[in-house]
Amino acid sequence: MKKGKKTISARQRFAMNLRKARLARDISQEELAELAELHRTYVGSVERGERNISIDNMERLATALQLDVIELLQGI
Amino acid sequence: MKKGKKTISARQRFAMNLRKARLARDISQEELAELAELHRTYVGSVERGERNISIDNMERLATALQLDVIELLQGI
Repeated sequence: MKKGKKTISARQRFAMNLRKARLARDISQEELAELAELHRTYVGSVERGERNISIDNMERLATALQLDVIELLQGI
Repeated sequence: MKKGKKTISARQRFAMNLRKARLARDISQEELAELAELHRTYVGSVERGERNISIDNMERLATALQLDVIELLQGI
């Protein structure tokens, strides 16, 4: 784990990792929302760190990206 | 990561890890709730997997146990 990862909240870590993983797969927010069966604008709000996302939705997004939730909470 | 960790949901992993970590520190649900500034009965419902807990509350509970959220999502 990188030093200082503590200073970034879990919410922000999830937001940044989600965006990074989505872009790495070259899919749009809409496509990810569809894969995760979530609303189109929801993914954007999560990626901006605006959403106090629930654990079940965290898992839906991770699964849609074929990742585990832990991977989307790694230190940045 | 243990094989087959996929079959247990993130919610259940968090519930089991939370309980394990709390008992390892020999503190009650009430004491943990107080440390995390959450309602007394909330911790019980999270530990039973009844609560679709938010990421901010996940972090409050982890911090109260001096852990990172990732540690409470490890495979069981």
